[in-house]
Amino acid sequence: METSVIFDPKTDAYPSRVYAEPRWLPRQDPIVYGEWNAESGISKEQSDFYAKNGYLFLENFFGGVELKGYQEKAQRLREASRNLSSDEIIRQPGGEEVHSIFAIHRTHPVFQELSRHPRLLAIVEHVLGGPSYIHQSRINYKPAFTGKEFYWHSDFETWHVEDGMPRMRALSCLIALEDNYPFNGPLMVMPGSHQIFVSCVGQAPDDCSKEFIAPDQASLTELAKRCGIETPVGKAGSVLLFDCNLMHGSNSNITPYPRSNIFMVYNSVANKLAEPYFGKKPRPEYMAARAEF
Amino acid sequence: METSVIFDPKTDAYPSRVYAEPRWLPRQDPIVYGEWNAESGISKEQSDFYAKNGYLFLENFFGGVELKGYQEKAQRLREASRNLSSDEIIRQPGGEEVHSIFAIHRTHPVFQELSRHPRLLAIVEHVLGGPSYIHQSRINYKPAFTGKEFYWHSDFETWHVEDGMPRMRALSCLIALEDNYPFNGPLMVMPGSHQIFVSCVGQAPDDCSKEFIAPDQASLTELAKRCGIETPVGKAGSVLLFDCNLMHGSNSNITPYPRSNIFMVYNSVANKLAEPYFGKKPRPEYMAARAEF
Repeated sequence: METSVIFDPKTDAYPSRVYAEPRWLPRQDPIVYGEWNAESGISKEQSDFYAKNGYLFLENFFGGVELKGYQEKAQRLREASRNLSSDEIIRQPGGEEVHSIFAIHRTHPVFQELSRHPRLLAIVEHVLGGPSYIHQSRINYKPAFTGKEFYWHSDFETWHVEDGMPRMRALSCLIALEDNYPFNGPLMVMPGSHQIFVSCVGQAPDDCSKEFIAPDQASLTELAKRCGIETPVGKAGSVLLFDCNLMHGSNSNITPYPRSNIFMVYNSVANKLAEPYFGKKPRPEYMAARAEF
Repeated sequence: METSVIFDPKTDAYPSRVYAEPRWLPRQDPIVYGEWNAESGISKEQSDFYAKNGYLFLENFFGGVELKGYQEKAQRLREASRNLSSDEIIRQPGGEEVHSIFAIHRTHPVFQELSRHPRLLAIVEHVLGGPSYIHQSRINYKPAFTGKEFYWHSDFETWHVEDGMPRMRALSCLIALEDNYPFNGPLMVMPGSHQIFVSCVGQAPDDCSKEFIAPDQASLTELAKRCGIETPVGKAGSVLLFDCNLMHGSNSNITPYPRSNIFMVYNSVANKLAEPYFGKKPRPEYMAARAEF
């Protein structure tokens, strides 16, 4: 049974946090698992673009009443969360402002429905080559004026080491709830970086610290040189899909324009979580689901 | 004699840090002081653009050997400054890295020459309507990966209150020493904001704290709504000229691309510094020149 696999960082395809020096390891998994056909939800060109670049930006994917519903619900949730204390509510460092609300697809019918939206699911299941479930969902609120940066990382590196996600067969879906600009701290991606796994340095097996493990600067410099940097931005309702191993990050936001979005991670049911590395305790269910929902 | 004027914040055209609430005051000074002619160094359209928007971006203004000379000198200076202690060398908050080196036009012949570059000076003297001097000069190094944000401000607000600059008759010249991108923390400007003086709140007359006095969020939101935000970026050697009262700022920089530039402020000789507000002690000469050089 897949979920009983225990990773051995020595024999594993994507070892990280085990070497003294950073290493580049080639991707050993497909990117688009499904064969393209008329039911894939995107064009052949879009599917090829995703495979090559590791992301796809879909302008105006949602709109009208549907989008308005998501926006209003997100706004109400944010206000309601201000005075709530819950593990699933994360605040801005050093502030009262709500930064993220997790597990929204479990708690709120409108987002549960969104997570299974037929137009979205068609694309997700084309990319993952079959049925999927939500590994993590959240709303992110990057406030105006004081939005903090989020340093470069591959999500898969974290999910693999800390959550025991076996292979690269997951994708993130980011739904913009506000218009995004190049200057209000949008997501930056390095197109094509999903082909390389940057094995990170830090956090010895017996170290339980919560320190953020980041890719090294030399790797990031070389990746940026090879891949460049793009900031796919557009109107509220646009959707950014990106591979679990794509290198991404975002700068701070001092502009008067907040940036909030819905973030949902789909994982293939054939790629369910095993034990985390190093005998670590699994992260909470709302960060890394072990049950399908 | 101009330099003996003592500001009375009550009768002054641009009082700031004196009211309990922010106020918007109209600009009472010209923007482009000179009549345009064939010796103005820019076209009539460019001059009109500057008057309307408060800035002008000149792509590839410097190039070749000239640019290379500035870049190499800036690089050498940065390295030489690492182990030097001097008031004129400012480091990154909480770090060793050199952030700015001031008064470069006084200390280094290559930058002294640059500050009097005929092609540049023609434009400066067209805008200021006559002879000018350097109010402040520096090299800014915004490092890769850890470059910090710089919050919104009008330079004139500071120079007026803290340095006793009487009127709006100064302009900044920013020479890019590296290629600039929308994503490596470039300068953001609000076009047209130079027409409004935002009177800031904070720092009572007897308070000598060094706290950064920022425009209020409501004013910034309204200004951004009216003016929009632009990020004029281009290749190394490009020049950005902007009015002393233009609202500007920059986000952080987590990319592998550093952003360094030469920053020179020209003030009209008819606008020399008076006494600072509130009986404050004048800032050092390298930050706010009282002598022509």
